[in-house]
Amino acid sequence: MYFGVDYYPEHWPEERWETDAQMMQAAHFNVVRIAEFAWAKLEPAEGHFDFDWLDRAIEVLNRHGLKVIIGTPTATPPKWLIDKHPDILPRDPDGHVRGFGSRCHYCATNEAYHWYTDIIVGQLARRYGQHPGVIGWQIDNEFGCHSTVRCYCDSCQRAFRRWLQRKYGTLDVLNKTWGTIFWSQTYTDWDQVIIPRKTVAEHNPSLLLDFYRFASDMKVQYQRRQIEILRRHTTNQFITHNLMGLFPEIDYYELGADLDFVSWDNYPRLLGSPDRARLAMTHDLIRSIRRRNFWVMEEQSGPSGWGIVQSTPRPGEVRLWTYQAVSRGADGIVYFRWRTCRFGTEQFWHGVINHDGLPRRRYEEVQRTGSELKRLAPLLEGTVVKNEVAFLYPYDQLWALDIQPNNPRLNYTDVVKEYYTCLHERNIGVDFVNHDDDLSQYKLLIAPLVYMVYPDLAARLARFVQDGGVLITTFRSGVKDWNNIATDKPLPGELAYLLGIEISDYDSFYGDKVGVRLELNGELSEGSADTWCDVITPQSAKRLAAYTSEYYSHEAAVTENRVGKGRAIYIGTRLDSNLRSKLIDYALLEAGVAKGLLAHSGIEVAIREKDSMKLIFLINHTDQKQTAALPGRYSSLLSNRSIAGEIELEPYGVEVLKEAELF
Amino acid sequence: MYFGVDYYPEHWPEERWETDAQMMQAAHFNVVRIAEFAWAKLEPAEGHFDFDWLDRAIEVLNRHGLKVIIGTPTATPPKWLIDKHPDILPRDPDGHVRGFGSRCHYCATNEAYHWYTDIIVGQLARRYGQHPGVIGWQIDNEFGCHSTVRCYCDSCQRAFRRWLQRKYGTLDVLNKTWGTIFWSQTYTDWDQVIIPRKTVAEHNPSLLLDFYRFASDMKVQYQRRQIEILRRHTTNQFITHNLMGLFPEIDYYELGADLDFVSWDNYPRLLGSPDRARLAMTHDLIRSIRRRNFWVMEEQSGPSGWGIVQSTPRPGEVRLWTYQAVSRGADGIVYFRWRTCRFGTEQFWHGVINHDGLPRRRYEEVQRTGSELKRLAPLLEGTVVKNEVAFLYPYDQLWALDIQPNNPRLNYTDVVKEYYTCLHERNIGVDFVNHDDDLSQYKLLIAPLVYMVYPDLAARLARFVQDGGVLITTFRSGVKDWNNIATDKPLPGELAYLLGIEISDYDSFYGDKVGVRLELNGELSEGSADTWCDVITPQSAKRLAAYTSEYYSHEAAVTENRVGKGRAIYIGTRLDSNLRSKLIDYALLEAGVAKGLLAHSGIEVAIREKDSMKLIFLINHTDQKQTAALPGRYSSLLSNRSIAGEIELEPYGVEVLKEAELF
Amino acid sequence: MYFGVDYYPEHWPEERWETDAQMMQAAHFNVVRIAEFAWAKLEPAEGHFDFDWLDRAIEVLNRHGLKVIIGTPTATPPKWLIDKHPDILPRDPDGHVRGFGSRCHYCATNEAYHWYTDIIVGQLARRYGQHPGVIGWQIDNEFGCHSTVRCYCDSCQRAFRRWLQRKYGTLDVLNKTWGTIFWSQTYTDWDQVIIPRKTVAEHNPSLLLDFYRFASDMKVQYQRRQIEILRRHTTNQFITHNLMGLFPEIDYYELGADLDFVSWDNYPRLLGSPDRARLAMTHDLIRSIRRRNFWVMEEQSGPSGWGIVQSTPRPGEVRLWTYQAVSRGADGIVYFRWRTCRFGTEQFWHGVINHDGLPRRRYEEVQRTGSELKRLAPLLEGTVVKNEVAFLYPYDQLWALDIQPNNPRLNYTDVVKEYYTCLHERNIGVDFVNHDDDLSQYKLLIAPLVYMVYPDLAARLARFVQDGGVLITTFRSGVKDWNNIATDKPLPGELAYLLGIEISDYDSFYGDKVGVRLELNGELSEGSADTWCDVITPQSAKRLAAYTSEYYSHEAAVTENRVGKGRAIYIGTRLDSNLRSKLIDYALLEAGVAKGLLAHSGIEVAIREKDSMKLIFLINHTDQKQTAALPGRYSSLLSNRSIAGEIELEPYGVEVLKEAELF
Ligand SMILES: [Zn+2]
Ligand SMILES: [Zn+2]
Ligand SMILES: [Zn+2]
Repeated sequence: MYFGVDYYPEHWPEERWETDAQMMQAAHFNVVRIAEFAWAKLEPAEGHFDFDWLDRAIEVLNRHGLKVIIGTPTATPPKWLIDKHPDILPRDPDGHVRGFGSRCHYCATNEAYHWYTDIIVGQLARRYGQHPGVIGWQIDNEFGCHSTVRCYCDSCQRAFRRWLQRKYGTLDVLNKTWGTIFWSQTYTDWDQVIIPRKTVAEHNPSLLLDFYRFASDMKVQYQRRQIEILRRHTTNQFITHNLMGLFPEIDYYELGADLDFVSWDNYPRLLGSPDRARLAMTHDLIRSIRRRNFWVMEEQSGPSGWGIVQSTPRPGEVRLWTYQAVSRGADGIVYFRWRTCRFGTEQFWHGVINHDGLPRRRYEEVQRTGSELKRLAPLLEGTVVKNEVAFLYPYDQLWALDIQPNNPRLNYTDVVKEYYTCLHERNIGVDFVNHDDDLSQYKLLIAPLVYMVYPDLAARLARFVQDGGVLITTFRSGVKDWNNIATDKPLPGELAYLLGIEISDYDSFYGDKVGVRLELNGELSEGSADTWCDVITPQSAKRLAAYTSEYYSHEAAVTENRVGKGRAIYIGTRLDSNLRSKLIDYALLEAGVAKGLLAHSGIEVAIREKDSMKLIFLINHTDQKQTAALPGRYSSLLSNRSIAGEIELEPYGVEVLKEAELF
Repeated sequence: MYFGVDYYPEHWPEERWETDAQMMQAAHFNVVRIAEFAWAKLEPAEGHFDFDWLDRAIEVLNRHGLKVIIGTPTATPPKWLIDKHPDILPRDPDGHVRGFGSRCHYCATNEAYHWYTDIIVGQLARRYGQHPGVIGWQIDNEFGCHSTVRCYCDSCQRAFRRWLQRKYGTLDVLNKTWGTIFWSQTYTDWDQVIIPRKTVAEHNPSLLLDFYRFASDMKVQYQRRQIEILRRHTTNQFITHNLMGLFPEIDYYELGADLDFVSWDNYPRLLGSPDRARLAMTHDLIRSIRRRNFWVMEEQSGPSGWGIVQSTPRPGEVRLWTYQAVSRGADGIVYFRWRTCRFGTEQFWHGVINHDGLPRRRYEEVQRTGSELKRLAPLLEGTVVKNEVAFLYPYDQLWALDIQPNNPRLNYTDVVKEYYTCLHERNIGVDFVNHDDDLSQYKLLIAPLVYMVYPDLAARLARFVQDGGVLITTFRSGVKDWNNIATDKPLPGELAYLLGIEISDYDSFYGDKVGVRLELNGELSEGSADTWCDVITPQSAKRLAAYTSEYYSHEAAVTENRVGKGRAIYIGTRLDSNLRSKLIDYALLEAGVAKGLLAHSGIEVAIREKDSMKLIFLINHTDQKQTAALPGRYSSLLSNRSIAGEIELEPYGVEVLKEAELF
Repeated sequence: MYFGVDYYPEHWPEERWETDAQMMQAAHFNVVRIAEFAWAKLEPAEGHFDFDWLDRAIEVLNRHGLKVIIGTPTATPPKWLIDKHPDILPRDPDGHVRGFGSRCHYCATNEAYHWYTDIIVGQLARRYGQHPGVIGWQIDNEFGCHSTVRCYCDSCQRAFRRWLQRKYGTLDVLNKTWGTIFWSQTYTDWDQVIIPRKTVAEHNPSLLLDFYRFASDMKVQYQRRQIEILRRHTTNQFITHNLMGLFPEIDYYELGADLDFVSWDNYPRLLGSPDRARLAMTHDLIRSIRRRNFWVMEEQSGPSGWGIVQSTPRPGEVRLWTYQAVSRGADGIVYFRWRTCRFGTEQFWHGVINHDGLPRRRYEEVQRTGSELKRLAPLLEGTVVKNEVAFLYPYDQLWALDIQPNNPRLNYTDVVKEYYTCLHERNIGVDFVNHDDDLSQYKLLIAPLVYMVYPDLAARLARFVQDGGVLITTFRSGVKDWNNIATDKPLPGELAYLLGIEISDYDSFYGDKVGVRLELNGELSEGSADTWCDVITPQSAKRLAAYTSEYYSHEAAVTENRVGKGRAIYIGTRLDSNLRSKLIDYALLEAGVAKGLLAHSGIEVAIREKDSMKLIFLINHTDQKQTAALPGRYSSLLSNRSIAGEIELEPYGVEVLKEAELF
């Protein structure tokens, strides 16, 4: 278990380093990330490198038991480089240069930038690639931050054409695939092909989807460029990148594939009051990217803020967020940042300690957490998270529905989260899977809005059901092919056979609510829905729910089709939470998924396991005490006592249990 | 009667064309519009033309009884042309190019674009100008769509100077007319004159008005260029353009003047729930553009939408909208579009049939409507709409009040619509007239916000009243001359004599409501008003209403002046709907306007007539049954039965009556 | 006492000038401002000057007893100049030119513009610098109007570098002062330093603060350039500039320092219903700029408006606003404008008379006011405003908190105004002081949000308290040094000793309300606060209030520290108005500030005095009568009667009293 902090020694007088390292050690830290924005200090003029200060910083840290992760500093090219190659700067769709003065001011396709990237990363790799006190590398920082994935410069224009040429081979194929016959957009020369800069109305949705894919791929390739250099020069050092949770602009499955493991930056109070289900979902997604344990490379340890300061973490919250991360698979926790910086844009992005450098309540909380985790570490070693339920969550769907939301109230991730929340309330763990992932380990697959489908995906879903799985899918599924072209088959297109239905009509819904009556195992529930209403004609499927208002009153709204050993449920509208909940209970039962511990108790439960041992994490996200009845006898790993029956958690309290060994 | 559909054969495999044509024929269609966006297919490279596919498409359609209207494809210049002449692209006021990637990406003043326009239109005209299966032409598509009327490119800069030179002759006249002495904006050379690009604060309002006029004129001239080519090469083929209803940026009187008749594109569910009065008003305005019957060139037949899908037409609505159009003077109905396109920006702009190409409920409704209209067609032949009431609605006023709304709540068309709605509720038909139109056929002229007045306009209004007409006008009348310069006479300026009043003070009103007491024929009504309060000193006029609050309490708010055989009513504030309604009833009575059939019944009534025959259209826009008592005996042309007394209309129901012939 | 009007003779036929001058004279005007936007008429082509019309206009005015103030016309460079030197045009952060077509279309750092400025101002100065009918000059017009202080052109880029070079001497100092080590922004050449154009995220806050200062300074220097020319050529003529009240982008202390006195433009109905406290505060700030009496150079006399017309002044309001200005130190009142202009952007910015040129109610009200002031003038002569309370209000603080508001609800001037309003309700006059002003004349200093502190400022505040003053300051004080760098001391940093506290924790507050209990002299008050909560550990200070909710319940929220003969009160949160009010009463009592006359009566009172004579102005800002009990016997200077006991003011009524002379 790694436990540490992000540190910028270059921001502080060198005579302070020793004090900082002592205080870190006292907080039980064993790892520090450094150097990620220090290019101007490492290479103050072209070809002049200064690593001495970094050597000294690493030495001080190592001396206090702190291993080091080096961040490559490519998120902040220095001014001398920008002035020499101003084309490195990215551009917005209007053609404006996004200039020097903050960070991420580079275009990932720029060839000059590749040249200078190779040099600085190569220098770092050669100097620290064998350093015993350096355990790993973080590439760049938060790829795509500040909307920098999609750039509209001339270099990207050219790169996009090359990317398309590789993908489509001939212009004829591209024209056909994109439907450029529409509005006379046919291209007759590769040099005619555009990137979606400002135009009069809206761009071709197939072009947009490819541009989104291209832009994501450019970040993946830019990361790969750095990884290749690092692999060449390093030994026994891991390579990771700090992802941004639910950031929607990069395909994290692809970005993660090249890394040893992924890490992410977790700021629960950045968007207001923390949303526990969203936090849990993000941890679960991040773990699913590589289907293995991960790190939190920046864990919030103080109020965040640039010009605006966010609310400060309540006493107990930093510890709680740490446990939540660990409970869902984090093997490393690195707090951001050590000491709040006195200058620059992030002046109010607070760290473990304030500008004044004194240990106060947040330092003490971190210190306590470190002490606890040190004790837990041997047990955590080798434990993983295992689940029976998965969500289908490909970035391609997200992008297609971002380009065409279909209804103003529709957002892909929001819908996924509605279903996720049902599972989270039941303390049933879930994984996320990509469109081409293996599904065989799951009993229930929830796949909202399978908007685009290609034949192999349809076949994989069918096989999953035939083999006994339960599939839940929804309205706006099977609408498109994988190039964002509408199917010419009756909806749900490629999924029609599996779902046993035909969508005979649909209504993008703008009213307040449409009535829905659900019938499950003979039990009737009245409720409502909104956003979208498919009017379903069941073929082989049976009806589970019908509308009770609008001109499609009495028509089917939800259906279930038995195929092979499994079932495929189609939900043709956006059900209210009560109906959605009932359907999920029904599906869990049908799928034979194990019940979650302390379901609906107000206490979040997550489990890490190894062989037969289960570590059960109980988390109270509220500022009120929570109590619940445990079904068995457990030992508490935090208080070293045995617990059975009622358990009580303090406000923002945490408990880690192990099933009592009977024999 | 023409009844048809918009079709893009180039979007579908050629082997499907036959099926499409058969299905169209089965829907009783007799006309199809094609080719409007097909430039890239018609001229795939400069000077290389391919009309064979179009020949074949026309042949298939003709063979199934479908006549063809060809749209000139100039709304979508192909990429090879844009790349050769990038200056064709329009610019926004900030100087940004509005690039390739959607449609309407051309500047109407660009000379290269004129050259290529002449070629493609000339080629089409020569090939199809004598084709017996081609009955007419649509120029371009929806001129000005996506805010493309006003362009800020260098070509427009030069064209504006030429246009002003023609209008003003000398710079001295321009400087004086615009008042450029204000803020030192005097021009001393024609090359100094600007177009209103981004500036520090707001532009000169007289310059803006001329720029609006210029930009509108550029579209008119660009259309005329195409019309002249078509006239040269065609015989017995009409020329039209599809207008955009209440689109405010082009003077439709001028655009329509060069056409054989105007048509328009009607999407009642594009802006949410259909607004029946707005729809009726739009039909009436469009009919008034040329004072003759018109077409709907694109009639909504499915949910519209690009990235966002709008709500689907309720069963019965497509038929209802068709009858509403016919009832107000449409002689051609063309549904947009045949089959929902599988690709491109308009992927979710649904047609009569969906992506899957199968006939479903909307096809059936269209088919039923076609069958009915086929029976009605002989009776409709030659019938027109005749009215006793007119609205003054010049685009110049609209533009001047768009440039300076005077009060944040003030919008010219909204105020016109408030008065229009009074007439619509009474089922009294109205026309719209331009500032220089003949008024002699009308009994009542409603002229809200005659903001700008020139002496001849004042004289024409005075003559109208003197000859016995009743004129209603409002606050903010007579404020300006026709160049947007404030009068130096006491308000209402040029209209003071006709109205018999002086505005001694005014208050742009920001409160909630000001009280108003109206007295008509001895009957008192208390109510309120807002937006603007003129404090009126009646001269020869008598007071009809006074304020009852604010510092101008007890001052006159509404007056009436008898001039010659008529009356001129001035409404100095924005009355609430009840007071406005009472005033309208009063004015209708004074003017001797015939009462509308089934007034206030909830059923919309409109009449087409020829000689003594009247076809009476009854329309129920609601999803509830409506009943009303008919004052006589009628024959139903839809059900072929005789009707007297109570009539009942189904939800979204329609009836067409003829007065029973007594002899 | 000067009483006059702004006049644009060039907007009207010369034959009208005589009538205008007669009407002005009849309104008791004795001064007229002219020529401020007339560059194009004064210099119609480069080097060709036409002053004849101006000579004639001045002659007509002088002949009617009207002295003249000439405005230099540099806010409106003519088109011939812009076309010759297009680089004069300013640019926005995106790089867009802000073009010709309104006003203020120049960059104050442009050297070509300096050249032409020198010429036109020099010509005017030489011609009118000794003219007996010209009493003074106004430089330019409302510097910075329409966000033109901060320009992003290349000239400004260069000028900023020069300005920084002068300020910092070496790049090392700049790099250290700005903290450019953050995000690798270190500059290694002066030509690398940027202005804050569009970038990817947010700029360095220290750079931004310097850019704000630089931009303000450029206006100050541009004004100084004109002043130097005028001083060279004029005798016995004053120089002023018309400020924009609470305009936040120029340091008015610096702009005012070069002027004989400042004036400002007062439009109470521009932002909706007039806010009396805001108006009073603005007068007080303007008077404090130079610590002497001032002018209102543009006093609202009719509804203002460009495209949108604002509500018209209620009868009595123009007179009331005039008296309010005089009561707080105005020695000149100039109404804007004489006659409403018939053309141009300000067509609806109404003057004393309307477009029609007739005297109506607002003319009559101005005339009455002029007649009254004529009588009062001898008494007003030499009277000034003297106060015991001051507010610390440096523009540097305003800018730093504009760059980083810390909390979305936080606005520097709003917080100052909350405290100002407490004093205003008590009719206690206040001054505003800059960070380096002498404080010795005050008993109470209210200094909200002393965000940035330098050692001398801390020392000056300490001395003020030690010498017996009472200081009130608040949360977010002592946070930064004067370069916008966070202190590394425990908060409140440099002020910790004076305040006797340490801020051990803080919470940028997003909830609804936090509870606060205040205890003053044993009296408990329960209330609330929001926006920010400092958790205070009192050292030498005693606690005046504590929180009653949140995790910092029971912690100190307000403290008081006795230092020397005085007290320093720290308010760690944003109190509700009741608690704030109680604290102010407590502080006023401690400081021994004299009670205000008719406090909390609804009548505004302000006093001008000379030797022992006090002129007491009573103002009723409401549309209701107001009565109050006077504590003594007074003579009314408006009605020439003696008044004691109850006094009644009409709606929008005014009274001027003198203490009755007992001996
Ligand atoms: Zn790029
Ligand atoms: Zn143009
Ligand atoms: Zn500039």
